[in-house]
Amino acid sequence: MGRPMALHLVKAGHEVKVYNRTASKMEPLIIEGAKSAESYAGAADGSDVVITMLSDSPDVREVILGSNGVLKGCKPGTVIIDMSTISPAVAKDIAARCVNNGVEFLDAPVTGGETGAVAGTLSILVGGKEAVLEHVRPVFDVMGSRITYMGPSGSGQAAKLCNQVICGLNILAVCEGMALAEASGIDKKVLLEAISTGAAGSWMLSNLGPKMIAEDWAPGFKIALQQKDLRLALESACESKLPLMGTALVQQILRIAEAGGCSDEGTQAAIKAVLKLGYLG
Amino acid sequence: MGRPMALHLVKAGHEVKVYNRTASKMEPLIIEGAKSAESYAGAADGSDVVITMLSDSPDVREVILGSNGVLKGCKPGTVIIDMSTISPAVAKDIAARCVNNGVEFLDAPVTGGETGAVAGTLSILVGGKEAVLEHVRPVFDVMGSRITYMGPSGSGQAAKLCNQVICGLNILAVCEGMALAEASGIDKKVLLEAISTGAAGSWMLSNLGPKMIAEDWAPGFKIALQQKDLRLALESACESKLPLMGTALVQQILRIAEAGGCSDEGTQAAIKAVLKLGYLG
Repeated sequence: MGRPMALHLVKAGHEVKVYNRTASKMEPLIIEGAKSAESYAGAADGSDVVITMLSDSPDVREVILGSNGVLKGCKPGTVIIDMSTISPAVAKDIAARCVNNGVEFLDAPVTGGETGAVAGTLSILVGGKEAVLEHVRPVFDVMGSRITYMGPSGSGQAAKLCNQVICGLNILAVCEGMALAEASGIDKKVLLEAISTGAAGSWMLSNLGPKMIAEDWAPGFKIALQQKDLRLALESACESKLPLMGTALVQQILRIAEAGGCSDEGTQAAIKAVLKLGYLG
Repeated sequence: MGRPMALHLVKAGHEVKVYNRTASKMEPLIIEGAKSAESYAGAADGSDVVITMLSDSPDVREVILGSNGVLKGCKPGTVIIDMSTISPAVAKDIAARCVNNGVEFLDAPVTGGETGAVAGTLSILVGGKEAVLEHVRPVFDVMGSRITYMGPSGSGQAAKLCNQVICGLNILAVCEGMALAEASGIDKKVLLEAISTGAAGSWMLSNLGPKMIAEDWAPGFKIALQQKDLRLALESACESKLPLMGTALVQQILRIAEAGGCSDEGTQAAIKAVLKLGYLG
């Protein structure tokens, strides 16, 4: 998702330096006018704003705080924005270390997926100092259509995890509803048309329901990534001693899908796990 | 819900006879022009169409097939429409007994709740013979804005239970998302605005989320009724040996809410159970 997000920045006229360990991933951006850096620190060198978009908490910690990391290249007053989805506690810790080095940090995970990144319509959930958000708002405006200030450092990540908890259970809702329809022998397409606009309606029902019927398992959002986000949500809930029994169950159902080789399929493939439990798939 | 539904029929100019064991419940309809019957059979006597709207499978069985029940009063060719939410298997059984007596039967449960009943915008899920549905469609059109033929007897109920399974898990989704927000110390109102139109969006998030924040527990749809519908869904899934682990969990979470005295509160009160599990409420 980093590529289309960076592309919006280039096209908006910002001077953009990019760095990725896999050089080929930078090429499409260089063709469009971005410069390439030699390292994380090099990308930060001379920049007013540094944006990271990575997989998980350890990656972000290493890229920002590591021996040749972003923080090493930053001048005082630089704003580091991490748009990955990671642990709120790690985001808070990284923020504290940045501030100790005279550098600002925002956690700013996004919702809207690859599609939203390409369209520039991401929803961005921001944690950190509000004044820092206002300072870099023009940068966010290029990538997203809804920018929400959620509170102090870690709050953007906390909000994203709430979002993912709801997404996960809404996915299981569609799976169990469709599995019961399958077991009952009723037409799932007719069912979907009848109920999608009522109290059972959800983005997941409207978007994943038809894919389940068509047995289209191409990702949208991969099960492996949903699992990572649910793990982060459950870890975060664990720190507060909050039992999230539904979310924990969703993670186990998705584990069944992963055991069946569906990690890189879209979350709609969770229906295969629910059907398998009933010997229906 | 029977009263506003019957009222639409009266106002549309149909000759309506009503019967309820509690005489006072008939009064508002009699004022509007309905006639009162002395029994279930009496309500059916001379009628072309008989509609039942009751709580659960045993009630419908008794009212239609009982010793002074609807079937006793029906002339051949009458159409009995049960708009209650009951077991698909019981609906099938009642349909068979009606047909044996020369009477037609449709199962036609509704979604849209009290609000939809009053507005005449119910979604009606119909099981039975399609020709019979077409015959009585003008009656449905007065009460609902979306009438869907789902298949043979029991299919309307089966579709309704799929709807309720999805509703139940979508409710738990909102509860766990809001509980994590509470535990994380982020502003739930701001969160809701940020995520309601994205992939986490659902009717339940938009409608129950604000009520949870306002601690408004007045029903919309009572927990006791959601529990009844989930029980029917789990019984139906049981007949197909289909495990519905999420739905089963929702029923247990709602049981916690019921143990706390929330049976007659709206389903949004399920958040109290999830918070209680985390000693947050």
